[in-house]
Amino acid sequence: MEFESLKGFRDFYADEESARREVFDTIRETARSHGFDEVSAPSLEPLGLYEVKSGEEIVNETYSFEDKGGRDVTMTPELTPSLVRMYAAREQEMSKPVRWFASPKLWRYEQPQSGRLREFYQPNFDIFGAPGVEADAEAIATADAVLSNLGLTDEYELRVSHRGVVRAVVSSLGVDGETATAVHRTIDKSDRLNDDEVRERLVDAGLDDDGVETVLSLTSLDGWGATDELLGVIDGDEQREAVERLRALDEALEGYGVDTVFDPSVVRGMDYYTGVVFECFDTDGDLRAVFGGGRYDTLVEEFGGPSTPAVGFGIGDATLELLMRSADIWPAEETSVDYYVAVIGDVRETATRVARSLRDDGEEVRVNVRDGRSFGSQLEHADAVGATKTVIVGERDLADGEVTVKDMRTGEQEQRPVEGLV
Amino acid sequence: MEFESLKGFRDFYADEESARREVFDTIRETARSHGFDEVSAPSLEPLGLYEVKSGEEIVNETYSFEDKGGRDVTMTPELTPSLVRMYAAREQEMSKPVRWFASPKLWRYEQPQSGRLREFYQPNFDIFGAPGVEADAEAIATADAVLSNLGLTDEYELRVSHRGVVRAVVSSLGVDGETATAVHRTIDKSDRLNDDEVRERLVDAGLDDDGVETVLSLTSLDGWGATDELLGVIDGDEQREAVERLRALDEALEGYGVDTVFDPSVVRGMDYYTGVVFECFDTDGDLRAVFGGGRYDTLVEEFGGPSTPAVGFGIGDATLELLMRSADIWPAEETSVDYYVAVIGDVRETATRVARSLRDDGEEVRVNVRDGRSFGSQLEHADAVGATKTVIVGERDLADGEVTVKDMRTGEQEQRPVEGLV
Repeated sequence: MEFESLKGFRDFYADEESARREVFDTIRETARSHGFDEVSAPSLEPLGLYEVKSGEEIVNETYSFEDKGGRDVTMTPELTPSLVRMYAAREQEMSKPVRWFASPKLWRYEQPQSGRLREFYQPNFDIFGAPGVEADAEAIATADAVLSNLGLTDEYELRVSHRGVVRAVVSSLGVDGETATAVHRTIDKSDRLNDDEVRERLVDAGLDDDGVETVLSLTSLDGWGATDELLGVIDGDEQREAVERLRALDEALEGYGVDTVFDPSVVRGMDYYTGVVFECFDTDGDLRAVFGGGRYDTLVEEFGGPSTPAVGFGIGDATLELLMRSADIWPAEETSVDYYVAVIGDVRETATRVARSLRDDGEEVRVNVRDGRSFGSQLEHADAVGATKTVIVGERDLADGEVTVKDMRTGEQEQRPVEGLV
Repeated sequence: MEFESLKGFRDFYADEESARREVFDTIRETARSHGFDEVSAPSLEPLGLYEVKSGEEIVNETYSFEDKGGRDVTMTPELTPSLVRMYAAREQEMSKPVRWFASPKLWRYEQPQSGRLREFYQPNFDIFGAPGVEADAEAIATADAVLSNLGLTDEYELRVSHRGVVRAVVSSLGVDGETATAVHRTIDKSDRLNDDEVRERLVDAGLDDDGVETVLSLTSLDGWGATDELLGVIDGDEQREAVERLRALDEALEGYGVDTVFDPSVVRGMDYYTGVVFECFDTDGDLRAVFGGGRYDTLVEEFGGPSTPAVGFGIGDATLELLMRSADIWPAEETSVDYYVAVIGDVRETATRVARSLRDDGEEVRVNVRDGRSFGSQLEHADAVGATKTVIVGERDLADGEVTVKDMRTGEQEQRPVEGLV
């Protein structure tokens, strides 16, 4: 009987896992170097956790089911609700700000496509308990450091905005409910639409000509120079505060050497963002967001905790892989081992001692576990598993108290006293 | 609105995750040092995958459901079926033996209790394509190395047997079907039952007096010396082969310096084991198995692959934690960071540059992201997050081009030129 894995789910064989792990190790090291403490949350949560703020969209696209005890549960489609639940439960014991990193597997029941799988990893960084622009900057600088530590340079672009910008526009239009949602969504998608398409969607949503022109003036803005023009489109307290915050952010990020672009079409789909929002795209504009995040200052309270400012972001592993591959910096997909121990003849006990001793010295060692295998076949295997060196333990050499160490790259061989190796 | 995690699922806060990660890093390093390549499999698989060989028991105790596309799926309750599926799919491309390590989360819908949760981690080691006792020994020696690398010494005991031993007894009794299954289970549980309880179960299963006495003679055996007596209980080809294999295993393990005990009550619940089986228990006998495994030479073929000998084992994370805690070697549950950067006054830009520079040097750095926080409160926070040193960036020091570096353990402070740090 033959089986296949589910569509949208990946098997990671040793070669692929080795590359993936190298990338995730760099992400984890960057989290550590930026003072984020790792945490982990369950992979299954009560469905109710996602009904608070994630919007219906996410609930419809999850692996949700009733468990054997009759509970409605969901395989975690995103991490933030779990983190907020955890934070709210123990916030009194923790010294603030709290900086959390986590690197969970997540699941969404969506149509699998390039850069979008049903099972994926999403490294996640959050800072709880710091309201200021310094925390926004620290979060964005950490995201930037992840990409530059992975070897990316000018292949990506960081675009930032503020929810206040869109809120002010929607409020100036005097719309709410479904119309407001449609305006939100259209602005969010405007980077991938032409003006006519934007206009059509806005008219469909019920906006009048003035309203349509206001939104088009907004979505046509791009770059830090445009923040003045933004105040020309909508002037008001909320808009001015948003612009002020964004300018302070740009200045704070200069200290980190991080460049960003102001882009009012950055909205982020999640309902829970409240302030600064940011996304990172490939410079060519071919891919989905490499990462995205923002400030969510009301969510902890909505989950039963005290009023807590928070800012965070998540990295999409599939898009990151596509970007690194297109930049030709995805790690080599190959396995390796320091030593292969070949066994020739009745020398099993010595071979075992050699392997033990090398392992005790911290070496990675594969020892032949198939007695009677030919020498040639053992060397081929050593090569296939990526051994740097092969220690050949053979009856004849051992009679002189020696083994042969072969460098698998150069082919050079040297005799070494077995006592030196055990 | 307040939420709790599901019963049997754990939140790992930073302190706890730090300890858990230290343990898992050691397990991963041991896998590497023993030449196992890491792989990873999906967390959701078609239900059919578990119906092949795992027995009904496991299917009844899983998180199984119908996905939105009408497929019967299961959150993976064990890893072996996925690995065997993966091996069968690509075995032709791989040089044998294949050694795989994986460290997945797994899920079972069981009653949560000490050492048994509904969500758990299970490091898993497998060798495919090596039929001999050398591979059995390598697997068991790797399991032993995991525990000794974690710092365990005489707190645990490795017990081994062979499925042929039980098979021979069952076959000598001339029973099959449910009776055979009941005999299997009773032998498996006999370590935790007294003779009267064993007798009762066997009589209930339908065994006659002679049969009962045969099984009791088997379960009373213990230790390598008992392998001769074993042949006194049942003599036959299968039994002799099993005893021969076990003796060869004991000898092979001597080369690794690994002691084991022969214990015919080691059966392992999984239906798919075919030969040598082993379990590791705490010496006090209070806990469930720390790890267990064995040889499963027919499973790959049953999954559509070619006939492939295989041996492997899985480690139970919850029991391992209980054992390490009782031995007082569970890692300290605390977070740490190399540097905290305190910000006093209007020095944000310099503080950012100091943090960047330390991070570029590979240090783990938390920088204050709350402007205006008092000096005392910053030092308290540095202490709470486990900072080794605090760099105090203050307006007054900076006027002289200096910062203060405080050793958080000794309290010693020294002035350092800021240029040396940036």
